[in-house]
Amino acid sequence: MRIVLFSALLFFALDAFSQTPATLNLMPVPKQIQVNPGKFRITNKFTIHAEASAGDTVLFAAVNHAYQTLNRKTGMVFGQQYILPSDTLKTAQMIVRVKAKSSPEIGEDESYKLQVTDSHLELDAATTEGALHGLQTLIQLCDKDDQGYYFPCVAIDDSPRFKWRGLMIDVARHFISYEEMKHNIDAMAAVKMNVLHWHLTDDEGFRVESKVFPLLHELGSNGDYYTQAQLKELVGYAADRGIIIVPEFDMPGHSQSWFAGYPELASQPGPYKPGPRTQWQNEHPDPNRPKGNGIADIVTNMEAPTFDPTNEKVYKFLDKFIGEMTTIFPSGYMHIGADENNGMAWKLNPAIMAWMKDHQMQSTDDLQRYYVQRVHDLLKKHHRQMIGWEEIYNDKLPKDAIVHKWIPDGMGDIIKSHGRPNDFASHGYGTLVSEGFYLDVFMPAYIYYNNPALDSANNVNILGGEAAQWTELVDNGNVDGRIWPRAGAVAERLWSPAAVTDVDDMYRRLFVLSDELDAQGLQHLSNYERALRRLTDNAPTDHLETLTDVLTPVKGYRKMVGAMMKGPAASYQTTPLTSVSDIVFVDSKTKRNFRQLVKTFLANHDKNAENSIRAYLTAWQQNNALLQPLFAGNKRLLEVQDHSKNLSAAAAIGLAALDKIDNGSPADAAWVQQQANALDAYSKAHNETEIAVIPEIAALVTGHLAPEPTVYSAF
Amino acid sequence: MRIVLFSALLFFALDAFSQTPATLNLMPVPKQIQVNPGKFRITNKFTIHAEASAGDTVLFAAVNHAYQTLNRKTGMVFGQQYILPSDTLKTAQMIVRVKAKSSPEIGEDESYKLQVTDSHLELDAATTEGALHGLQTLIQLCDKDDQGYYFPCVAIDDSPRFKWRGLMIDVARHFISYEEMKHNIDAMAAVKMNVLHWHLTDDEGFRVESKVFPLLHELGSNGDYYTQAQLKELVGYAADRGIIIVPEFDMPGHSQSWFAGYPELASQPGPYKPGPRTQWQNEHPDPNRPKGNGIADIVTNMEAPTFDPTNEKVYKFLDKFIGEMTTIFPSGYMHIGADENNGMAWKLNPAIMAWMKDHQMQSTDDLQRYYVQRVHDLLKKHHRQMIGWEEIYNDKLPKDAIVHKWIPDGMGDIIKSHGRPNDFASHGYGTLVSEGFYLDVFMPAYIYYNNPALDSANNVNILGGEAAQWTELVDNGNVDGRIWPRAGAVAERLWSPAAVTDVDDMYRRLFVLSDELDAQGLQHLSNYERALRRLTDNAPTDHLETLTDVLTPVKGYRKMVGAMMKGPAASYQTTPLTSVSDIVFVDSKTKRNFRQLVKTFLANHDKNAENSIRAYLTAWQQNNALLQPLFAGNKRLLEVQDHSKNLSAAAAIGLAALDKIDNGSPADAAWVQQQANALDAYSKAHNETEIAVIPEIAALVTGHLAPEPTVYSAF
Repeated sequence: MRIVLFSALLFFALDAFSQTPATLNLMPVPKQIQVNPGKFRITNKFTIHAEASAGDTVLFAAVNHAYQTLNRKTGMVFGQQYILPSDTLKTAQMIVRVKAKSSPEIGEDESYKLQVTDSHLELDAATTEGALHGLQTLIQLCDKDDQGYYFPCVAIDDSPRFKWRGLMIDVARHFISYEEMKHNIDAMAAVKMNVLHWHLTDDEGFRVESKVFPLLHELGSNGDYYTQAQLKELVGYAADRGIIIVPEFDMPGHSQSWFAGYPELASQPGPYKPGPRTQWQNEHPDPNRPKGNGIADIVTNMEAPTFDPTNEKVYKFLDKFIGEMTTIFPSGYMHIGADENNGMAWKLNPAIMAWMKDHQMQSTDDLQRYYVQRVHDLLKKHHRQMIGWEEIYNDKLPKDAIVHKWIPDGMGDIIKSHGRPNDFASHGYGTLVSEGFYLDVFMPAYIYYNNPALDSANNVNILGGEAAQWTELVDNGNVDGRIWPRAGAVAERLWSPAAVTDVDDMYRRLFVLSDELDAQGLQHLSNYERALRRLTDNAPTDHLETLTDVLTPVKGYRKMVGAMMKGPAASYQTTPLTSVSDIVFVDSKTKRNFRQLVKTFLANHDKNAENSIRAYLTAWQQNNALLQPLFAGNKRLLEVQDHSKNLSAAAAIGLAALDKIDNGSPADAAWVQQQANALDAYSKAHNETEIAVIPEIAALVTGHLAPEPTVYSAF
Repeated sequence: MRIVLFSALLFFALDAFSQTPATLNLMPVPKQIQVNPGKFRITNKFTIHAEASAGDTVLFAAVNHAYQTLNRKTGMVFGQQYILPSDTLKTAQMIVRVKAKSSPEIGEDESYKLQVTDSHLELDAATTEGALHGLQTLIQLCDKDDQGYYFPCVAIDDSPRFKWRGLMIDVARHFISYEEMKHNIDAMAAVKMNVLHWHLTDDEGFRVESKVFPLLHELGSNGDYYTQAQLKELVGYAADRGIIIVPEFDMPGHSQSWFAGYPELASQPGPYKPGPRTQWQNEHPDPNRPKGNGIADIVTNMEAPTFDPTNEKVYKFLDKFIGEMTTIFPSGYMHIGADENNGMAWKLNPAIMAWMKDHQMQSTDDLQRYYVQRVHDLLKKHHRQMIGWEEIYNDKLPKDAIVHKWIPDGMGDIIKSHGRPNDFASHGYGTLVSEGFYLDVFMPAYIYYNNPALDSANNVNILGGEAAQWTELVDNGNVDGRIWPRAGAVAERLWSPAAVTDVDDMYRRLFVLSDELDAQGLQHLSNYERALRRLTDNAPTDHLETLTDVLTPVKGYRKMVGAMMKGPAASYQTTPLTSVSDIVFVDSKTKRNFRQLVKTFLANHDKNAENSIRAYLTAWQQNNALLQPLFAGNKRLLEVQDHSKNLSAAAAIGLAALDKIDNGSPADAAWVQQQANALDAYSKAHNETEIAVIPEIAALVTGHLAPEPTVYSAF
């Protein structure tokens, strides 16, 4: 990832993406930006004065943080120490003006204006959060030329397209530490996201300390949970960065961990322990059920631990529990999940079936509807607006509920969509879109960037959307790199005008963002390098990195389904996520560089581009031999030995194709077909990774760079 | 740091240190170890059963943590999920037996026995903490050969030489985040340290939330402090790893930050704000005082904010404050600092001088003694044993006080030693040694390892010692690499038998420890690499790294005094610590490798060693040219351009020397003298770094590798 093979190559590659001047390095792109001639030169005299309420501690902390971030980035040793409300530095080079102190809230005025001339800067915002966004833009504007660091002269007038720009993180399948959550909140703030949707409970773990019902975390977490002090601190940490936290407590399914301590709430007697649904199913074989041999069976046909909606104790319990949680999570929203309940646990309990009959319920769908309504009423009592995944949707759903779209069309038997986002929205429901934003399906950033589910959602009730990171295959050691920088593409889709769609420019800025997040402390690059050191047992990683930099995880759910089907079923919670497929980035930066070079070369046979392409291909071709000493006796690297050989062979084909072009000896059709077939074989995923640069090498053979697929299969 | 130039070279270099079999990769070396033939092969069948009190949650968490650490290290996908007290896995491959659940305490039984045969492992300990130490040894025992991962067959009987094995971290000069503190606690546990001495307050910052006196943190911290919830969590986090936390509240000097909120406690009227003593002195010029032009003046002659011992309100305040702190810090110790009070603030206050006269006090030393006695009595009331730096020592000091030795002899006028450790100890005082363990003076690990201050301390009252990291030049971005791996050498000195003194073997194991700490999440390597990316503006760092891998920070206080004298005086708190001298390691791993090669070569003109030496020298010689594109237009790298040129020239000399040896044409004396002079010039520090490999290159010229200095000047 870090090592480009020759310096000269890199300097070319950095220029290989044509920069759209109006987007600079900004992600997300602002609503309006005018780039003027000139630059504000950053020197050690750079000073800031803030005109804001003296009590706006969040604003002053953010101003100081931005100032010190720029201080470190430029190495200038700025003369100002701490920027305080009492400063009256009217001569400051930058003025920050905030009309009114505020706390983050959905729908508030998040706009700001930022004006840079060659002698001073002005940032104006109506709210604290608007100013926070402007300060992030300021940091991203800082750039460098031969004379040093500068801000380009610009006039920016910015505000978001959608009011809800979220990131969902599942901390149940793998517990994500408090420290990693902070890293992610910092990164969200950098791209102006404003909602952290925290999937706190699921079958696999109950991650919240409850003082009212302590067996929830004591028996439901295997020791991995957040204390209330930590939860409150994170809520504050997020708020200080303009972000609200929306907790999710998934019910009535996805709830096995609740029942470890309180089995009386479940539809079946138990006992229970936290763990995957598949583990429960394996441990509770039932001849009346089909055996779960595929993902469809697991989701649709097999029993899973589920709340008992016919038990009044459940609602008494939830009333108290929700009340306790409102003391920790002040935002006006609570997410109840409500997804993927197939009703099997209810059908297998005669008492529940009898109750349904007594209450004239025709199907378990009616019982789910009843449960959702009861929970809705409890939330309302506690002044919380209910959000649920789209399975809450029905024709009697209370109008203040928010429907969270996630199910793509065309999932066959596995799970069925409940409607398009516009369907929910046009019935008056606030609607969130996560369909097409699931980061856990390992799609490259451009797929999320051009998410048709969002593009077609144009009703006024569409609040926005959320990138979603489920964590069957993610833990503390790779979470930053699984979410970032890709989530930046989602953040831009949700903030920037709909017309901002240039994929090449997005990728150029996405990798700048990646470096900036690295500089600010995100661990995505560090974790990758650490993981490579582990794979080599601390031998030098450079040759391995030449290979892994162009490997990407297999797309879709194939890796996850494999992990879920592995025995013992619970193992995906304790399988070390240290294989190559766990650590390589979904978007290969090298692939994007290489693709741009190939594009340039094919357009006009540019000699510089060709030289850079040859440098890449030569390095790949030679790399397999260089890796042999490392492969010897290293069983962990067995998984990439074939890829290494194939990359070398593919690179040789690319070099041969270039030779033919240079010799003016056009390739005959048979040769092209033969090479294309070989490359096609090399493009196949195995051991859950695939070589990312095969389409570009193929383009050198065919003379034509195929457009990238707009959709990949999930299975 | 990470990149060795040629794989072949590295594989040789790894073998270059001759491994002492009885030490394996263990750090600290155990008291007794018998290495037996055979290996226990680690497979995915590896299982652990713990025979311990079901309520010993700390033990079970540690067993699970060790198990998963090994799972990640080996990539085996172990079959066991969570190791629970309810497991009755009598067939487990490893049994852990703990006699009695315990909490960390100074002087407890920390011993353990670990037996590894080719078929099973047994760990026995009397206490939870003994078992925790044994689990760390287990992790360090895990090694690899061509057939995979294994534990060598051993019988270990281990217990510490000293009962107090501490690390002091100053969080006042720069605030060290809660997350970084956790990283350091993890690393301490890995090397069996058991005391975190937390320097929580100083002139520059008051880092603890006080609910009784909230202006302490509100006005004394510039917003950087730990909440009480965080403090309590860290105390628990440390205890779970066998570590007690001893807080230090430095008084009566080093206390400016207290007075920002409570100026009435000081000897002068104020106002005050948190910041360096030098800042206070600059802002309060007094014609009656000599101007502080040197470090001696600052410490000995100039007024600094100091508590007023004659004011009864001070003791009422401290009584309440200490009472509050005992609710957070349960350990039986509290450190009151009491260092570097020159009495100037008292001499300049006529009321204090009059009070002293009324009380028959001859000097400010008497007043300091009085203050220490009063604070001692308050601590006693709150059931805390007092620790103070050696300035608390006097002939009337209560016998239950612990004296913390830090001042080396021979500091001239700056500050005078109060006695040798044995002097304090032989008068019955529990004594701690930090003299010679100050990490902030940038000495290589072997200097701490052979610390004469500890070696001469042989009285039964010597409790142990502490490595000390002051943070004028350390912040979150470099703290891990400033402390680690060097603190491992101190930990070994305090744990292992006094006879364990082989420096080469220590270094071999220190770098294995470094890699292991990296794998477990310490940020020292990641921060170095991130800092290099910042210096190159995300251009490739490999050539820069070839240079910086052999640069070390200038030894002693030269860099710190420079920072303190810089105007504005406060700037060392907000100067970005991103220059090369801030990020390079004190111990260059490359230098240690190279030194071993030179040693081997000079002993017998070993051809393999020569080839490796030539590979290093050739790379260094060529590197300056390779760096030129990066240097162009990069002002931040100006600081190392001369070093790059000099390293190249020095390498050329080394190659010429080898040629002469190979040609059998012995160098004439004039040539040798000429080269030695040139190398001597290249060895000089500038821009606060020095080239670490000059002595070894010089040895190729002279044919003689000089022993390393046993002492370096602090100034």
